[in-house]
Amino acid sequence: MSGYTLGIDIGGTKTAAAIIGPGTAPTKPDVIGYTEVPTPARDGAEAVIAAAADVARTAIAASPYPPDRCGIGTAGTVDPAGVVTHATDALPGWLGIDLTARFTAALGIPVTVLNDVHAMGLGEARHGAAAGDRLTLIVSIGTGIGGALVHEGRVITGASGSAGVLGHLTVAAPWRRRCGCGRWNHLEAYASGPAIETRYAELAGSPARLPEIGARARAGDQVASTVITTAADLLGSALVQVVTVVDPDSVVLTGGVARLGDLLGTPVATIISTQALPGPDRTRLRYSTLGAHATLLGAADAARTARA
Amino acid sequence: MSGYTLGIDIGGTKTAAAIIGPGTAPTKPDVIGYTEVPTPARDGAEAVIAAAADVARTAIAASPYPPDRCGIGTAGTVDPAGVVTHATDALPGWLGIDLTARFTAALGIPVTVLNDVHAMGLGEARHGAAAGDRLTLIVSIGTGIGGALVHEGRVITGASGSAGVLGHLTVAAPWRRRCGCGRWNHLEAYASGPAIETRYAELAGSPARLPEIGARARAGDQVASTVITTAADLLGSALVQVVTVVDPDSVVLTGGVARLGDLLGTPVATIISTQALPGPDRTRLRYSTLGAHATLLGAADAARTARA
Repeated sequence: MSGYTLGIDIGGTKTAAAIIGPGTAPTKPDVIGYTEVPTPARDGAEAVIAAAADVARTAIAASPYPPDRCGIGTAGTVDPAGVVTHATDALPGWLGIDLTARFTAALGIPVTVLNDVHAMGLGEARHGAAAGDRLTLIVSIGTGIGGALVHEGRVITGASGSAGVLGHLTVAAPWRRRCGCGRWNHLEAYASGPAIETRYAELAGSPARLPEIGARARAGDQVASTVITTAADLLGSALVQVVTVVDPDSVVLTGGVARLGDLLGTPVATIISTQALPGPDRTRLRYSTLGAHATLLGAADAARTARA
Repeated sequence: MSGYTLGIDIGGTKTAAAIIGPGTAPTKPDVIGYTEVPTPARDGAEAVIAAAADVARTAIAASPYPPDRCGIGTAGTVDPAGVVTHATDALPGWLGIDLTARFTAALGIPVTVLNDVHAMGLGEARHGAAAGDRLTLIVSIGTGIGGALVHEGRVITGASGSAGVLGHLTVAAPWRRRCGCGRWNHLEAYASGPAIETRYAELAGSPARLPEIGARARAGDQVASTVITTAADLLGSALVQVVTVVDPDSVVLTGGVARLGDLLGTPVATIISTQALPGPDRTRLRYSTLGAHATLLGAADAARTARA
């Protein structure tokens, strides 16, 4: 037992791997041989598995010690056995794949599989932004809005593997919008990256990407400012409902939209501290500190603590 | 170590105690010497403590083995040390009382204190309606609407001790109503027992108590039926939001309003199964099976598993 663990992060756009050293929480373990490649999603599941195994072997070759187990965080929902039970459009053919079996065969070491946002949450809760918090809610805001509930160093996966997902909460928005899931007025249709870009294009009359919208808001552009503030208001209102029920020590913002920083976070924190009930109104708002390493670190942790 | 535990349940209207045998989950342990007295709430905290200690001694006298520890479920919010950090109006003077210290002194055995609904949830999750479920949400609907999240046999208390509280979720109700907390349009203002009675009196023109409203609904009274269905719809809609984020195996209904049975539960179950996303839409709706014993059993469990 080397105590070194292989972490793999399989997302819709990129796949990464690294060897994670045997350090324990809350210290951040060593991350060795971090390697990232584009996910060949359009070439199908077999190509994605082959690319992930390749990037894993590259990371292994860079490590002084061979890993004795592997943790995988993947887009989509997985059951406790590591079979994909719900796939995103970003990974065609992923549904039904037994990732535990496939990667155990490919790598020759025991494999633990979990959802990528659950892994990311575990990483941030144990080694990153929420280290030391007993109960934390990670909110990942990018193309979609996912999340993870982590309680005393363990992720709560949920009965169907989708605990922590916030994107499909219904919000009281001032205009109707259909969500990608087909229903109406879900948070994701207003506060995800694409939703903010769509709203900006509607109001400004010409499109801009999210970082540019953020830059314009900081430069005083009223439309950019309004669009971000509205997204933050709806995110904050949804979070008030969640923190009222969950009462976490902290909420950690991560993902592309979280890179808007205080443009997003300041209104969200204000809404939580003024609208949540006494108790939950003290929930701290934090920002991700581990970035691209969070999922790898969390997946490695899950593998290390998996029941033998 | 006898393995027997004293359970005490301190509510706004009644205080109960019993000795709980050493049986382990999911079997229901023996409940010995169950004794219940009215809580002398209006006489203040000292009277409530004295009455609880008395009822505890009555239960102890009925047991073949003396208990070697004590678990207390109490109305209000308690911190991990057992100090009341938020009291209900039903227990004047309760705020700030160090229940661990007071009952350790009164009874001479180690004491663990938690919120009564958290204890009730732990009891139902380990020995009752949700035995065998990994993640369950208990919803207690009576004068207020509380709840508890129980994950793998442990209650998630939350950073401020109020995790699981559902009464203060905002609902999209067809008419405005102020909640007891001072804010507007919270679930508790529409679906608690008093809220249902108030609405019935408004629409029917004369008051009736909840069991009578239920009986009238079963007999075909349209006003009674409408009032209960509206409460169930709002409860169901709030639960859809919660199960979307928490993804529990089950929701357990308990408390006085839950005694309406399928009048309440059938619309709630239908709303969850049709409006929640795939995955959480399979959350099972269950009814409490332990009744008045749930809090005592859960409090005893908490005492047994407390860190030494």
